[in-house]
Amino acid sequence: MVDIVRLHHVELCVTDLERAKAFYRDLLGLFVTEETKEQVFLRAIEDHSHHCLVLTKADAPGVAHIAYRVAREEDLDALAETFSAQGLPMRWVAPGEERGQGRALRVQDPVGLPLEFFCVMDRAERMLQAFHLHRGARPQRIDHIHCFVSDLPRAYDWYTKTLGFRCSEVTVTPDDPPKLLAAWLFRKPNVHDVALTHRDGPRFHHVAFWVPDSKAILDFCDILGATGNASRIERYPGRHGLSNAFFLYLRDPDGIRVELYTGDYFTGDPDWEPIVWRSDDPRRATFWGVASPHSWFEDLVPVHHVVTGEPVAVQPKGEEGMWPWAAYAR
Amino acid sequence: MVDIVRLHHVELCVTDLERAKAFYRDLLGLFVTEETKEQVFLRAIEDHSHHCLVLTKADAPGVAHIAYRVAREEDLDALAETFSAQGLPMRWVAPGEERGQGRALRVQDPVGLPLEFFCVMDRAERMLQAFHLHRGARPQRIDHIHCFVSDLPRAYDWYTKTLGFRCSEVTVTPDDPPKLLAAWLFRKPNVHDVALTHRDGPRFHHVAFWVPDSKAILDFCDILGATGNASRIERYPGRHGLSNAFFLYLRDPDGIRVELYTGDYFTGDPDWEPIVWRSDDPRRATFWGVASPHSWFEDLVPVHHVVTGEPVAVQPKGEEGMWPWAAYAR
Amino acid sequence: MVDIVRLHHVELCVTDLERAKAFYRDLLGLFVTEETKEQVFLRAIEDHSHHCLVLTKADAPGVAHIAYRVAREEDLDALAETFSAQGLPMRWVAPGEERGQGRALRVQDPVGLPLEFFCVMDRAERMLQAFHLHRGARPQRIDHIHCFVSDLPRAYDWYTKTLGFRCSEVTVTPDDPPKLLAAWLFRKPNVHDVALTHRDGPRFHHVAFWVPDSKAILDFCDILGATGNASRIERYPGRHGLSNAFFLYLRDPDGIRVELYTGDYFTGDPDWEPIVWRSDDPRRATFWGVASPHSWFEDLVPVHHVVTGEPVAVQPKGEEGMWPWAAYAR
Amino acid sequence: MVDIVRLHHVELCVTDLERAKAFYRDLLGLFVTEETKEQVFLRAIEDHSHHCLVLTKADAPGVAHIAYRVAREEDLDALAETFSAQGLPMRWVAPGEERGQGRALRVQDPVGLPLEFFCVMDRAERMLQAFHLHRGARPQRIDHIHCFVSDLPRAYDWYTKTLGFRCSEVTVTPDDPPKLLAAWLFRKPNVHDVALTHRDGPRFHHVAFWVPDSKAILDFCDILGATGNASRIERYPGRHGLSNAFFLYLRDPDGIRVELYTGDYFTGDPDWEPIVWRSDDPRRATFWGVASPHSWFEDLVPVHHVVTGEPVAVQPKGEEGMWPWAAYAR
Repeated sequence: MVDIVRLHHVELCVTDLERAKAFYRDLLGLFVTEETKEQVFLRAIEDHSHHCLVLTKADAPGVAHIAYRVAREEDLDALAETFSAQGLPMRWVAPGEERGQGRALRVQDPVGLPLEFFCVMDRAERMLQAFHLHRGARPQRIDHIHCFVSDLPRAYDWYTKTLGFRCSEVTVTPDDPPKLLAAWLFRKPNVHDVALTHRDGPRFHHVAFWVPDSKAILDFCDILGATGNASRIERYPGRHGLSNAFFLYLRDPDGIRVELYTGDYFTGDPDWEPIVWRSDDPRRATFWGVASPHSWFEDLVPVHHVVTGEPVAVQPKGEEGMWPWAAYAR
Repeated sequence: MVDIVRLHHVELCVTDLERAKAFYRDLLGLFVTEETKEQVFLRAIEDHSHHCLVLTKADAPGVAHIAYRVAREEDLDALAETFSAQGLPMRWVAPGEERGQGRALRVQDPVGLPLEFFCVMDRAERMLQAFHLHRGARPQRIDHIHCFVSDLPRAYDWYTKTLGFRCSEVTVTPDDPPKLLAAWLFRKPNVHDVALTHRDGPRFHHVAFWVPDSKAILDFCDILGATGNASRIERYPGRHGLSNAFFLYLRDPDGIRVELYTGDYFTGDPDWEPIVWRSDDPRRATFWGVASPHSWFEDLVPVHHVVTGEPVAVQPKGEEGMWPWAAYAR
Repeated sequence: MVDIVRLHHVELCVTDLERAKAFYRDLLGLFVTEETKEQVFLRAIEDHSHHCLVLTKADAPGVAHIAYRVAREEDLDALAETFSAQGLPMRWVAPGEERGQGRALRVQDPVGLPLEFFCVMDRAERMLQAFHLHRGARPQRIDHIHCFVSDLPRAYDWYTKTLGFRCSEVTVTPDDPPKLLAAWLFRKPNVHDVALTHRDGPRFHHVAFWVPDSKAILDFCDILGATGNASRIERYPGRHGLSNAFFLYLRDPDGIRVELYTGDYFTGDPDWEPIVWRSDDPRRATFWGVASPHSWFEDLVPVHHVVTGEPVAVQPKGEEGMWPWAAYAR
Repeated sequence: MVDIVRLHHVELCVTDLERAKAFYRDLLGLFVTEETKEQVFLRAIEDHSHHCLVLTKADAPGVAHIAYRVAREEDLDALAETFSAQGLPMRWVAPGEERGQGRALRVQDPVGLPLEFFCVMDRAERMLQAFHLHRGARPQRIDHIHCFVSDLPRAYDWYTKTLGFRCSEVTVTPDDPPKLLAAWLFRKPNVHDVALTHRDGPRFHHVAFWVPDSKAILDFCDILGATGNASRIERYPGRHGLSNAFFLYLRDPDGIRVELYTGDYFTGDPDWEPIVWRSDDPRRATFWGVASPHSWFEDLVPVHHVVTGEPVAVQPKGEEGMWPWAAYAR
């Protein structure tokens, strides 16, 4: 089977490149590796690769692609063969077409998310021990993304069977038997590389960066307050019940949601069984019992088509699936 | 002038003594020094005195007295003379009438708060370096109280002129000239021993305990979630704009509000001038821009009369005072 | 190739079972899953499996076996075939022979370390969100071990080629070309599952547990001081240069070394290249420039033979290998 | 009696002003209020006054004066009268002679330390909530100094009786009855404004700055490592037994010792009794049992004469005093 290592980077469409750069570099604390008139390529503190985030000048906010890194160059060919057999829209990206990156394969997944797979990327200076240059939230690496999709049963089936993702935790309805509302899926052995919620989609909910500890998040809130950016905070620091991570949610200048995230757990043992949370458990979202703000459920940005580059039309959510169903064999 | 050292303890009226003890000792982490059928006397981690909190069995929640410690026994006589000349209701409390405490003077202050002044208290084992016994929020010492009073100009005048308090910070209206809405007053040289808000009063808003650092507060929230006590959290952890302290607000089983508080600053220099916050500044309450919940302004408990022991009738708030006025001579 | 997931547990030989249990459970904060007259099985806070540490009553301190978990039961058969072909001493362990564990394969590796491979283990209650029961150092999971071996070139070759380990960081001599002194090897994608130092061996240096953050380590030092256990600290808290983790080294009642460890980085990308530290770099061991105490290099415990159960004779260290050599193909 | 508020600032003699400024401003994180060709005036994060540290260009490292702030201008006249009666060398400093400062009185104390007393200082911008500008160790305010003196009984007597200092903790010999080796004395109600050790003196041991929490100290060590300044660390982070504070000791480019310090306790209650530590208690210096390095006891800098400006000759230490003696009336 192909070996997908982890979520590696995302390309965000932003309407004002300078403003976005000021947010992600000067405030959040990412490092710029390279920039052009149309794009800025940034990396996090422990990255040794060219970018974990691409900002691209655009007319409207959105997400152009979501990239996973594979272990071997030949995994790309195997994926191309599979996607072709599945009839998914796809295209090859030539080496260097995306700055700093080798050959890549882009595909629209069965629920409409614009994925990229690649293996090779240029090296960049690693800032992990340049502690005097750490700023803002001290983002160490990209951790995961969260998307809303209109057909979670189909997505769950495809990510687990075609791509080999495993499931760490799920949210289900209080029904008996329960129905699946959201799933946290991983390749690298922590809680997730991608979380998928069953709602109108495809839409992009947030990208999360790993930070060193909860103190980095508190310090960053102080910096946001001091610099007049408190209004960028959408959901205040807290402990997630689901994932056990400590978190903060922000909105960037285009309204794209960013999470700071730290302190989940190891999921790589062969007998890991998903933790099941009922949607009416008040400790699920925040272990301390805080409800998420309305905007957190409503404000998402479109994703683009990997071939046309156009925003993908949002579909109303379909039938919910039973949990556990056949796709999750235990 | 008399030398008042600091806010030293409060006596809370609780309707279920065992339940209250479970909250303050087992969950919050105070230590019980002594208990009777009707009362529990607790101290915090760094205390070397008998109690910083008294729980008294009662029919309804409330606050029986608020105690300040004076530097010298003779300060009590000087205070008695002053209060008598001012015609304030007062009475002497004999040594031992309050367990562990020497002679004390109780007085109803001009805005109706039940104060006590004393100098001598029995010593108790100090737990500061018994780190293996620190639990819950690791409360180190009592820091301050907050009350609503119906005549803040009168209270401000009395606390500063009669008792020698100084003012660290104030909240004012956006008017020109501004009017005073709340004042933070201190004897020990940090932000406050008592905060007073101009609203219907007298009513008791909260008692605050100093904790070692922000991490102690985050850890305590995790414990509250784990033990099914998340609903006791009323206002989530954050940084105060006013005072700069990191905080958490809880409600005890009787609904009495408790704050955990850490990290303000030194106020003892002779030229300290109050910091003035406009009430419409979103960073005043929480520096990160979070509004306080409705309950935080509405749910308070009565205070008792020092002579009759009955709850004191709440008066509608009077005229607001101008800021700065003559009482604050600069 | 076989798929080894991670270092999973170690079996320590201790001379006083009650004393050892008091150390690992009451002081360090592990949870006891099961115990017999001769053994105690413990797990860490986030573990969902029966044990990450086995304490076995013995006449002298030592390490009976070091266990790695594999992804599939059939990996064990493949390993048995390989080890047999390599002529390594090995034996099968029947299901339940080690409490809570399925079928396992034990082998003496080419440099004399007693390894175990297994796939299946009984489930146990996970304590990750029982925050009120977290104590001591709050150990979340086992992270890695460190051993001294007399032939590092041979060990490096075998772990990388036979078992599929990768290398995250190395220490080399200041010579030109440099010679390899120590290597950090991993299967799970952080800095290491096992570190190997080229010295007289085989000997066991330490087992490390992951803790939530640096504050957990500082708090634990306070607890050690408060309980009269300060002398158990061998190397004080600090930041490793190599691995970037925050650490503390302790000695258990038998003198066996335990590390508390947190905050390294992701190593799973396909193009990761080992970070090379010269042995004379003062920031290598502790980034703040502190030298390790003499005992840290000298006091190690024996490892046992997987077939005879006897301590393995220590060999003088052999020739150092060049770095990079053929075994590490770049 | 005169009302001394607290230790307020020190004047350090440095041999290279630019190098010293780089250390105290760029690395440690103090803010420059004003500078001349010969001097730099710095303040800490929460200061609202002109300076808490003066760096003065000189031929050799040393301490020119140690300043205490008084509550009222007239306290200076009372002090002058007392010092004159005691025959101590003294002189008046005119307003502005020390930049930003009003009238001041300098005196050589009975054990040779160069003290200054003043009341009025120019205001300066307070940086407490400019979190985005906090750097290095995030020093909030000056906390205390430590000096070696040749006649501790005489010093103890003078500081407590003439200046009204109180004693929080002491170190004594293991003798019976014990003899006093060092005393921690305070005016502001935490552990100390000044610590005095009975050794050859007068010599200046260190100046300490309060930092927000232990994390600020760990982060600063990382910055020291990253910027090639690890060798400036003399005594690694730890918990003091005596004072209970978390600490770090550094050496500035002239070898002058700086402590970072946080988290002691309130000492202002009228019945506070000094905590007595025997000098052979391994938890006294560091609660975790670490011994201080030799240099920490040996490397001190001279203090200057307030009238001549010359370094004061060091006297061999005299007889130790009994503890408790008449000077400490209980």
